Amino acid sequence: FITIINSQNKTLRNTLMREKSLTMDTLNPQVKAVEYAVRGPIVTKAGDIERGLQQGQKHPFTEVIKANIGDSHAMGQKPITFLRQVVALCSFPELLDSSSFPEDAKQRARRILQGCGGQSLGSYSASQGVDCIRQDIAVYIEQRDKGVPADWDNIYLTTGASDGIVSILKMLVSGQGRSRSGVMIPIPQYPLYSAAISEMEAVQINYYLDEDNCWALDINELHRAYQAAKEHCHPRVICIINPGNPTGQVQSRKCIEEVLHFAYEENLFVMSDEVYQDNVYSPDCQFHSFKKVLYEMGPEYFNTVELASFHSTSKGYSGECGFRGGYMEVLNLDLEVKAQLVKLLSVRLCPPVSGQAAMDVIVNPPLPHEPSYLQFHKEKRAVLGALAEKAQMTEQILNTVPGIKCNPVQGAMYAFPQKLFFKCVSLLQSLGISPDMMYCLRLLEETGICLVPGSGFGQREGTYHFRMTILPTTEKLKVLLEKLRDFHIKFLKEYASLEEPKR
Amino acid sequence: FITIINSQNKTLRNTLMREKSLTMDTLNPQVKAVEYAVRGPIVTKAGDIERGLQQGQKHPFTEVIKANIGDSHAMGQKPITFLRQVVALCSFPELLDSSSFPEDAKQRARRILQGCGGQSLGSYSASQGVDCIRQDIAVYIEQRDKGVPADWDNIYLTTGASDGIVSILKMLVSGQGRSRSGVMIPIPQYPLYSAAISEMEAVQINYYLDEDNCWALDINELHRAYQAAKEHCHPRVICIINPGNPTGQVQSRKCIEEVLHFAYEENLFVMSDEVYQDNVYSPDCQFHSFKKVLYEMGPEYFNTVELASFHSTSKGYSGECGFRGGYMEVLNLDLEVKAQLVKLLSVRLCPPVSGQAAMDVIVNPPLPHEPSYLQFHKEKRAVLGALAEKAQMTEQILNTVPGIKCNPVQGAMYAFPQKLFFKCVSLLQSLGISPDMMYCLRLLEETGICLVPGSGFGQREGTYHFRMTILPTTEKLKVLLEKLRDFHIKFLKEYASLEEPKR
Repeated sequence: FITIINSQNKTLRNTLMREKSLTMDTLNPQVKAVEYAVRGPIVTKAGDIERGLQQGQKHPFTEVIKANIGDSHAMGQKPITFLRQVVALCSFPELLDSSSFPEDAKQRARRILQGCGGQSLGSYSASQGVDCIRQDIAVYIEQRDKGVPADWDNIYLTTGASDGIVSILKMLVSGQGRSRSGVMIPIPQYPLYSAAISEMEAVQINYYLDEDNCWALDINELHRAYQAAKEHCHPRVICIINPGNPTGQVQSRKCIEEVLHFAYEENLFVMSDEVYQDNVYSPDCQFHSFKKVLYEMGPEYFNTVELASFHSTSKGYSGECGFRGGYMEVLNLDLEVKAQLVKLLSVRLCPPVSGQAAMDVIVNPPLPHEPSYLQFHKEKRAVLGALAEKAQMTEQILNTVPGIKCNPVQGAMYAFPQKLFFKCVSLLQSLGISPDMMYCLRLLEETGICLVPGSGFGQREGTYHFRMTILPTTEKLKVLLEKLRDFHIKFLKEYASLEEPKR
Repeated sequence: FITIINSQNKTLRNTLMREKSLTMDTLNPQVKAVEYAVRGPIVTKAGDIERGLQQGQKHPFTEVIKANIGDSHAMGQKPITFLRQVVALCSFPELLDSSSFPEDAKQRARRILQGCGGQSLGSYSASQGVDCIRQDIAVYIEQRDKGVPADWDNIYLTTGASDGIVSILKMLVSGQGRSRSGVMIPIPQYPLYSAAISEMEAVQINYYLDEDNCWALDINELHRAYQAAKEHCHPRVICIINPGNPTGQVQSRKCIEEVLHFAYEENLFVMSDEVYQDNVYSPDCQFHSFKKVLYEMGPEYFNTVELASFHSTSKGYSGECGFRGGYMEVLNLDLEVKAQLVKLLSVRLCPPVSGQAAMDVIVNPPLPHEPSYLQFHKEKRAVLGALAEKAQMTEQILNTVPGIKCNPVQGAMYAFPQKLFFKCVSLLQSLGISPDMMYCLRLLEETGICLVPGSGFGQREGTYHFRMTILPTTEKLKVLLEKLRDFHIKFLKEYASLEEPKR
């Protein structure tokens, strides 16, 4: 009935008034094609419920627990004191005279301000970022990679990692029809990739991670995907997310070498999303940067393979998402192309300078002899220790739930468990309802828990997952997992009985 | 000789090594097409010279004066104390207990933090921005526009104004061939517009501002441009920059009404770039927002014309470019399209939250009864007063130079004077040198003054301009203008004698 009134009103409106210039019919179809589930309909609904709760609406729960997005501070993580001291000092330099700030924070702030036009955070920086911050990043990378040389000329500050990823992809997209650029991405993936590919009308080439093998990247699958794609596009880039989002795996050194060899052979540009490089929890796993492995493969590789690596202030132990800090290091870029990249970045003028300052602290933390050293490392250890504990707890509890199968959360901030098949799937599908979406929607409505359906990240056909962060506090995460277990059991009883997964 | 070695090296490299995946040949042609003169080759050269000076290189000057970009703090403008206090308090909330911060700054900071997830600037905000900041912006707009209603649901925080402008344009670009979207922009324009249009492969429709009439927008010229463009594309948007960049004019109310009537008739989406709304210097001029004029034209207009208006923390009296703060208000957007816009914005997660906080101070400054009121307004008046003085001085001195003609700088931060024709133009052109570029390059090399050639903004064929900011301190600006005068006279003597402009 309401629909009828609305559509009548619309007709009425259109008759009486000027037509709209921008409608769903005239909207850029590439914008329409974009999907971004991390902030999709479930999350919108969660916001509505949250506002309802505040206004006294009744729900079978008292708070919404948002485990949909890697937003640490929103889930209660406290900022690293030293980082915020440096940002505050840069923002209001009068504080440099205050005795309540430690000398090492002041020294960092003075150095950053020295690098800013007019010594102000309010000046535009150069398009690539503040020089001294780029230099600090290069030093950090050299230390991280045990002496592999890093040139600050290859460093670009970005607005979060997303900005860098989109800029590099934008450079690589060209051609029409069968010569259109193809971009290889893992499935499951972080939906920034698919969204950017849609928007740029590039060709998305899926390579599937091996769920049965802790979401490892299988080199044979890369070959398969590449060969199949060659028939209809020009594969030019391979994207890797390590540690994995949403899958939480940490890639082995051997596997990285295989990927790099493959990229070398097939002349692919490599984009390695390494924003979770500090988030490794499994004692058996270690973070290996793509750059270091490339170096160890010898100069024939290190001096030729085009590699862009991305980092961010948003993840790791700092979790500073709101500052939109990040950087990329780009190796072996053709010199003329590099000038084009700088030109492209210059149109957006510069990344937020306070985000650049935050990035500087992450790559240039207090040294053992400095006054903030102990507190900084205590805070860092506390965050990473709690995450490791929660990673383990999440896997353990989820695997006690009948019909849920969860790989170890080796790194990053997410679990991506599989919900085993239930008979209702075909029924739901015949009604036009995505089983994944319906599961998450009912979970939200009945328990207040907000997760993201697996379909938003991609999954093998006929499998169903969800992504949840491990970011709620330990107590809250435990409650979440128990509520989820109860809901899942109830859901299975109500809708279907268990089946063996089809493979 | 060097070229030969280089090209030999290149051949050698290509023979020995893997080819590059990304070269000028395989680069996205849309990226190649982008031009952004504000940070173009002259500015790169200025940076090189600056570094050379620091390293003791000899030049006929001791410092580079950068009048190429609207970067107030880099030119010595001091931040507004209250704004920085609020940002520092938000960044390091321990300062809320400090007695050295005024209560009104603390109240602003507490309110902003209350609106952030986990009360931290480090959380992602909603894609549209922090709710309470959007509410403050709506209140500000209502006050600015003397009671014209503003709905905070129509407000979107952005990463500087550029981000908003690019997002709206992205929505509006569609179609192929003759139905491809056309975007009407003023000439001269701010090159973000032409860069975004190139990148999106939209059709740029030039309407020329009337230099003989203080760069006013002539409605007949709009009709001309529109009719001509209709032959080969689908004109869908009109962009207006008011006050003008690079042209410094302030549009009359009558002219705005004409533009809005035209947009109404021709079903165009209106984008009004109003980032200089606080920068009006001529006593005869007044800023009229497009929204207020639309309202006064009656509900038939106010309830139908799609209008996006942009503002920023980077200009005005605060000049906080580095924070990348900004907002847009979008009226009469189709509801489904609005959801698409929010989706598109959600892919970049959120604008920098410290930039959002800075924006909040600009729309919610201290009130008369609050402790920071006097200082805030003293600082604001000082900045705007100095700019008004420099605007007048720039026009006056430039118009004493033979062969230079400069319109009044009614607003914004720039003069865009014309260099009258000289006989060498055809000689230079036959050598493949742009006279504009050559002029600015020699000016830089001989005097250290960095300006942007008029060609970077667009100008009528056969006319030659440059853009200079009025941002250097009064003393430095005077030196700059005198050096420029001497250079211009010498240049004219050396290259050519004056001619009458051809019209």
